Amino acid sequence: MALIVKKFGGSSVANAQRVFNVARIITEDYRAGNEVIVVVSAQGDTTDDLIEKAREINPDGPSKREMDMLLSAGEQISISLLAMAIEKLGFPVVSLLGWQAGFQTDSNYSAARIKRLQTDRLTSELAKKNIIIVAGFQGLNKYDDITTLGRGGSDTSAVAIAAAVKADLCQIYTDVDGVYTADPRKVKTAHKMDEITYDEMLELATLGAQVLNNRSVEMAKKYNVELEVLSSLERKPGTIVKEVVKMEKMLIRGVAKDANVARISIVGLPDSPGIAFKVFSKLGQKKINVDIILQSVGRDGTKDITFTVPEDQAKDAMEVMEEVKALYNCEKVVCDEDVAKVSIVGTGMETHPGVAATMFEALYNAGVNIEMISTSEIKISVLIDKDKADKAVEAVHNAFIQ
Amino acid sequence: MALIVKKFGGSSVANAQRVFNVARIITEDYRAGNEVIVVVSAQGDTTDDLIEKAREINPDGPSKREMDMLLSAGEQISISLLAMAIEKLGFPVVSLLGWQAGFQTDSNYSAARIKRLQTDRLTSELAKKNIIIVAGFQGLNKYDDITTLGRGGSDTSAVAIAAAVKADLCQIYTDVDGVYTADPRKVKTAHKMDEITYDEMLELATLGAQVLNNRSVEMAKKYNVELEVLSSLERKPGTIVKEVVKMEKMLIRGVAKDANVARISIVGLPDSPGIAFKVFSKLGQKKINVDIILQSVGRDGTKDITFTVPEDQAKDAMEVMEEVKALYNCEKVVCDEDVAKVSIVGTGMETHPGVAATMFEALYNAGVNIEMISTSEIKISVLIDKDKADKAVEAVHNAFIQ
Repeated sequence: MALIVKKFGGSSVANAQRVFNVARIITEDYRAGNEVIVVVSAQGDTTDDLIEKAREINPDGPSKREMDMLLSAGEQISISLLAMAIEKLGFPVVSLLGWQAGFQTDSNYSAARIKRLQTDRLTSELAKKNIIIVAGFQGLNKYDDITTLGRGGSDTSAVAIAAAVKADLCQIYTDVDGVYTADPRKVKTAHKMDEITYDEMLELATLGAQVLNNRSVEMAKKYNVELEVLSSLERKPGTIVKEVVKMEKMLIRGVAKDANVARISIVGLPDSPGIAFKVFSKLGQKKINVDIILQSVGRDGTKDITFTVPEDQAKDAMEVMEEVKALYNCEKVVCDEDVAKVSIVGTGMETHPGVAATMFEALYNAGVNIEMISTSEIKISVLIDKDKADKAVEAVHNAFIQ
Repeated sequence: MALIVKKFGGSSVANAQRVFNVARIITEDYRAGNEVIVVVSAQGDTTDDLIEKAREINPDGPSKREMDMLLSAGEQISISLLAMAIEKLGFPVVSLLGWQAGFQTDSNYSAARIKRLQTDRLTSELAKKNIIIVAGFQGLNKYDDITTLGRGGSDTSAVAIAAAVKADLCQIYTDVDGVYTADPRKVKTAHKMDEITYDEMLELATLGAQVLNNRSVEMAKKYNVELEVLSSLERKPGTIVKEVVKMEKMLIRGVAKDANVARISIVGLPDSPGIAFKVFSKLGQKKINVDIILQSVGRDGTKDITFTVPEDQAKDAMEVMEEVKALYNCEKVVCDEDVAKVSIVGTGMETHPGVAATMFEALYNAGVNIEMISTSEIKISVLIDKDKADKAVEAVHNAFIQ
């Protein structure tokens, strides 16, 4: 007798057969006496097909308002089809668009933020004993225009609903059965975790684990929504994400690899006050995400700065740095894309000082050279050769997790 | 400097090239200083594709509410793409869904009636000098659920907007360049009319001329909206539909053929009071449209009734009549699908008594036998052999129109 929010991605509803698979998962929980609200994304390739249609009309990129109008049709199709499947199975159901479900957003088309969720309609449909199917990823701004929430928006929609209706659980269905200590395709001893904290999940999501969208985890933490990451293909418990988890023996919750990294170095910057600020504010203006930063003293009163950016932003970053080089008459700018970041995450490391040493020793024994280091309370990241990343993940995983 | 409503059907926006063709028609009128509101249907086969998706999920037919949710996504796609094309041409534009444009309907899903059109948003977008692209065929009921207006709904949407904003003209773009005195593919001397009255257009639409949806002509007459039927492929004047037209020499405005007809006869009904009422109310309950009715006295105090129905409803009608036959112990029920209806329409005939005689003479001279006759103030229809329909149309056309 719980109130459960379930979210299914586009591949889970890509065709009629998968739609029925999802419909059965939903109706089983409903038949067991639960109230069920479902958030669903656009079917399989629908979004890509719509983007292609828009590109045919205007290759330079149409206005974001019209793009949101176009793309939000995708979920409108998937919610009605899923509702039809549930009708066919003989259960009461109603589909709701983002605005019908009460999503009020700001006017930042294509990447809107939820400002408020007006739950009247959701509450009244639950009172009518309806299963509710909500279009993820979309809302309405104060001008009564349709907006979309941007990447991973359906996860955010689900968590927002769970928070607003005070759901007992928010289940995020994916094609994996939970969160693993490392990529199970690469590390044999990797195993699924029963539980993980929001902070650990956030670090893992940022690091490229790609199970859950970051914004949705942040929102779940803020409103204390218990999440479960689980498989839509197998019926078994997944990984629960919550504030406090049972302390297992593990110091480390997971090991992640991020290969989408490039390292950029500028050599011979004048050693004048505020120079680093000037460089990084130029990168910030171009919306380039700088991650690890290393600053060192160079020759003749100059200094060198090395930093990492996502590999797909490396070209933009290099353009900025070439300007900087010309402006300050620096010696050179170098970009290296053959690097990867390997990180360990775990709230346990806060109280155990030897963790970094164990990690570095494991890498040393595996013959992996560390080029840069970055740490937070619950995370240690190292930058290494891209070629050695998988080997490094395995070595570190084995050092901490059996 | 006029306010013009334009409506384009699905084939006019079927692909990117056609979308731009429509965008250019719109922007030419806007550039000439007019205010322009455009109503558009779903692209080409979109509606059929969506119906097929629904059929895969539930071959027995999903609920009409979910069907309307699904189908209304079609216009959402076409309005945003057309708006993007107009943006690309450099003009200010905004697309609006049915509910955003203010369409409030009853809750008769899949065949909803417009109850009210709230014009605030349309007025404010016109004030901003925007070209407005409105999704045809759709509205919102009092529960905030999406409805569709049913067949030909986009024509109705266009006329409703024209009436509500007091437009100077409502242009319905089709793949023909106007309303003809007969089907120009069949009758060489057929020619395009410059003007036609609402009543004449209504009779012609009912008779299968298929240029304009009937409901939209009725609404145009009621609110005195001047219509123009014209081609989206050629830039030239079409046919104006309005209350009073210049009297040309023609008595007859047009000759139409309807081949979607079947004739059903029941022989040997008891001649008791109210029997015809009972038969036709049974047909009415099944939503079967009965057109021409002929009743005659049969043998031995019985009577025979002959009537026509659309050919695609003949099977349903026969099921009803077999019940009637069993119930009243009638002699037999016969269905004949090899018939067609040929009609002449014209307000002129009200004051010219010889019209029927001229028509019958023309048919006699052409060797066409008349099986049933039906007349109204501005129309004479005859039922004849389907094989001879085209010949009959030509003969009648030549008798009245040179």
